[in-house]
Amino acid sequence: MAKKQKTFRPKARVPRGFRDRLGEELIAEREMLARISVIYEAHGFDPLETPTLEYTDALGKFLPDVDRPNEGVFSLQDDDDQWMSMRYDLTAPLARFVAENYDGLPKPFRRYQVGSVWRNEKPGPGRFRQFTQCDADSVGAPAPHADAEMCALFAEVIEAAGVPKTDFIIRVNNRKIVDGLFEKLGLASLEGGQTRLNVMRSMDKFDRFGEEGVRLLLGPGRKDDSGDFTEGVKLSDPNIDAVISFLTSTVEGAGQQTLDNLMSILSETDSGKSGIDELIEISRQIPDAYKGSIAVDCSIIRGLEYYTGPVFEADLTFEATDEKGRPVRLGSVGGGGRYDGLVKRFKGVEVPAVGISVGVSRLLAALALKNPESAKPKGPVVVLALEADQMPAYQEMAAELRAAGLRAEVYLGGSNFGKQLKYADKRAAPIAVIQGEDERTKGEVTIKDLILGAELSKKIEDNAEWREEQPAQFAIKRSELVEAVKKTLARHA
Amino acid sequence: MAKKQKTFRPKARVPRGFRDRLGEELIAEREMLARISVIYEAHGFDPLETPTLEYTDALGKFLPDVDRPNEGVFSLQDDDDQWMSMRYDLTAPLARFVAENYDGLPKPFRRYQVGSVWRNEKPGPGRFRQFTQCDADSVGAPAPHADAEMCALFAEVIEAAGVPKTDFIIRVNNRKIVDGLFEKLGLASLEGGQTRLNVMRSMDKFDRFGEEGVRLLLGPGRKDDSGDFTEGVKLSDPNIDAVISFLTSTVEGAGQQTLDNLMSILSETDSGKSGIDELIEISRQIPDAYKGSIAVDCSIIRGLEYYTGPVFEADLTFEATDEKGRPVRLGSVGGGGRYDGLVKRFKGVEVPAVGISVGVSRLLAALALKNPESAKPKGPVVVLALEADQMPAYQEMAAELRAAGLRAEVYLGGSNFGKQLKYADKRAAPIAVIQGEDERTKGEVTIKDLILGAELSKKIEDNAEWREEQPAQFAIKRSELVEAVKKTLARHA
Repeated sequence: MAKKQKTFRPKARVPRGFRDRLGEELIAEREMLARISVIYEAHGFDPLETPTLEYTDALGKFLPDVDRPNEGVFSLQDDDDQWMSMRYDLTAPLARFVAENYDGLPKPFRRYQVGSVWRNEKPGPGRFRQFTQCDADSVGAPAPHADAEMCALFAEVIEAAGVPKTDFIIRVNNRKIVDGLFEKLGLASLEGGQTRLNVMRSMDKFDRFGEEGVRLLLGPGRKDDSGDFTEGVKLSDPNIDAVISFLTSTVEGAGQQTLDNLMSILSETDSGKSGIDELIEISRQIPDAYKGSIAVDCSIIRGLEYYTGPVFEADLTFEATDEKGRPVRLGSVGGGGRYDGLVKRFKGVEVPAVGISVGVSRLLAALALKNPESAKPKGPVVVLALEADQMPAYQEMAAELRAAGLRAEVYLGGSNFGKQLKYADKRAAPIAVIQGEDERTKGEVTIKDLILGAELSKKIEDNAEWREEQPAQFAIKRSELVEAVKKTLARHA
Repeated sequence: MAKKQKTFRPKARVPRGFRDRLGEELIAEREMLARISVIYEAHGFDPLETPTLEYTDALGKFLPDVDRPNEGVFSLQDDDDQWMSMRYDLTAPLARFVAENYDGLPKPFRRYQVGSVWRNEKPGPGRFRQFTQCDADSVGAPAPHADAEMCALFAEVIEAAGVPKTDFIIRVNNRKIVDGLFEKLGLASLEGGQTRLNVMRSMDKFDRFGEEGVRLLLGPGRKDDSGDFTEGVKLSDPNIDAVISFLTSTVEGAGQQTLDNLMSILSETDSGKSGIDELIEISRQIPDAYKGSIAVDCSIIRGLEYYTGPVFEADLTFEATDEKGRPVRLGSVGGGGRYDGLVKRFKGVEVPAVGISVGVSRLLAALALKNPESAKPKGPVVVLALEADQMPAYQEMAAELRAAGLRAEVYLGGSNFGKQLKYADKRAAPIAVIQGEDERTKGEVTIKDLILGAELSKKIEDNAEWREEQPAQFAIKRSELVEAVKKTLARHA
């Protein structure tokens, strides 16, 4: 017997750390991005699209000439041997674009960009290697006016995304204020770099470990519940006191009080004073409509290394629970700030810039927890196809329903009745429209209310008679199709 | 003197074959895609998003283990040594998705997808290595009903994209009809593969070279105007006659006549007859509203190698000229057809499938030629910022204008008056709103009509007095700001 050759069949699998998205989640994202884009455009920002691939050196990643250059970014070599990388954010490509087109652009250059970014990192639960960002930036706009605008815009955008004003807060800090603290601590010099970083990391734990925990981290070190020991920064006691009074200077709901407290700690430092003055000016310029949504909070540490001035973080404040009723910590859904060194890498001169970035996926996930109904699929009305030669008549029914603004399709997978109903069920169709030979000769169609049908089959034992009164299936004249479908849908709205 | 160390400055440049897109082009694309998505969703197609990267073997590209594996696709190796590639179309990822989730999906599975695709090819003028596609496919839907639906949907989508019915045509052919022709020519066997391909390539030239040229290509060969010689296929004279009568069987505007002609040539071939029957059934099922937009055309050869049944091509038929008034050939803006082998590569069983793909970039470019006005930037109203301490007042003006549905922003690049007006000009702002100290103390603002201003400065020599009658700049009460801006804009609408 001849040996049968085996055909190679690749395994169908989505790559590690990536995912497919289908239906309602995509529609919700699209609608959210549309609402955000409207706000950005109204404020005079123009949309920009940059390509997925950038030259690696332009992204600020300098790949060594080794076999495996994908440190943090996905990279490949072009035909002409130049290295290209998939963008890991929307800011680095903006810097490249501005530097490349500097003379021709209006300045300030106001652009927004919506798009995917890619991270060559270890994936984890809820941590993907491709996700959506939605940024707005003003390049060439100096502090503090553009910062105030960005801060108010951030609030307007989060509100437009679907979060009421009572459910979020934009927290504002300033890199310069923390620099002022370091000045006071005697850590402002170049050599203090690693210590500054360690102090900031400790400060960043304030919301989790509280004053006592941070005191330990800044001093001798801290042992956690599992017994693991974290080395301490070993600051002097007066310096630890200064950091703690800095961290506790934020008075929730009282920006002026917070600023006064900060001033009393940092008034003798140049950076601190200048940073506080910027925050005062920003506060003054926030429109009344958003004054309550924006708060000075000097415990915002994240991202400070990157920024050069004011820093913003958008936090959700409403309470949410997962599908099992457990409370979910929502946290930050975006950040931003001033980064004046952006274009300098290319052009050698400093170009002031400030921007915000909305964490689209996190915001969507949080809103889905708040409104679980919104994530439910909205299936089409399915017109069954029982007689193959009546296809044009079925298509006409679907077309009439679509013309009335409804989703509607004809089942095109064959003539098996059971399969067709199963399909309608799997599509989450609210209604099946049925016209067999019987109905056709009588000039009728049957409306099958699948939502009512599902409810009835749940209640069937204790409520048999109700079923007869409210039949989930009824015949109507063909000419009444659209009206009957609309009425049936309205019953479940 | 110490030697100064030179800082490395990367050159800011977009990678070869890629491009940035800004402003109106992106907005036009977004609006077109939104209109197309509405149609797809109304027909019961759900949006799907697959990741940019797929495992290379799942895309059907089997990379040799060499240094430079980027043949046609951009590829890179993951940490675990698996090769991944950026998708080159939306169909291969669909096949992977369907195969991976086969049991859980409703069948037919109806999805649409909008997204970028990447080609590692040599770029040229108007030929980019990243572009947008917009596909709809039915997987698990056998011929001919789903083909008829797809064909009518194609017409509906092109119309929704902004092309009136009189300006496009969906041409339909069938792979099986061409197979029937090959049967008749005695080329149906496996060995005739290369000859079949050469015959199809010659047929594809019919619209450019005409009957005489194609006769030469099918026979002894053809020398073009530059003297270059193309080897001929060397068919026998009766076979050449058969191909020509096949190609000339299309009667523009008379589908039934075309089908009759084809039947008289191919009636004795199994494939030919089955292909013609399918086209007859498709024609029968096209809704009346689109019967005039769909035509059988057996000269559509492109893509036949890929498809297994009916093939569609969307062609624009209006006349267009470029900015220099030269006629532009618009041609095809999308294609599609039946490809039953799609999922087989993974699962071993044939899964019937049919789809369409809209060439978004070409369609946009064609519509921009038709309506050049639509591509003009629509800049924001710019509120000048003359006194730094009045920033909140300027922001309030901009906010009022936005609340009235207008684009408006405050200039945030400094206090130089000339720079501010230059900026407004560069942004294509229709109006600048000005409030200096004078105006402020009088409770007024000045409206500067920049469109009228530009017109006047063109006509200034021969029309000096007109300028005084219709001043491009006038003062109003602060409370009349929104009304005055709206009135001024309306004058230019």
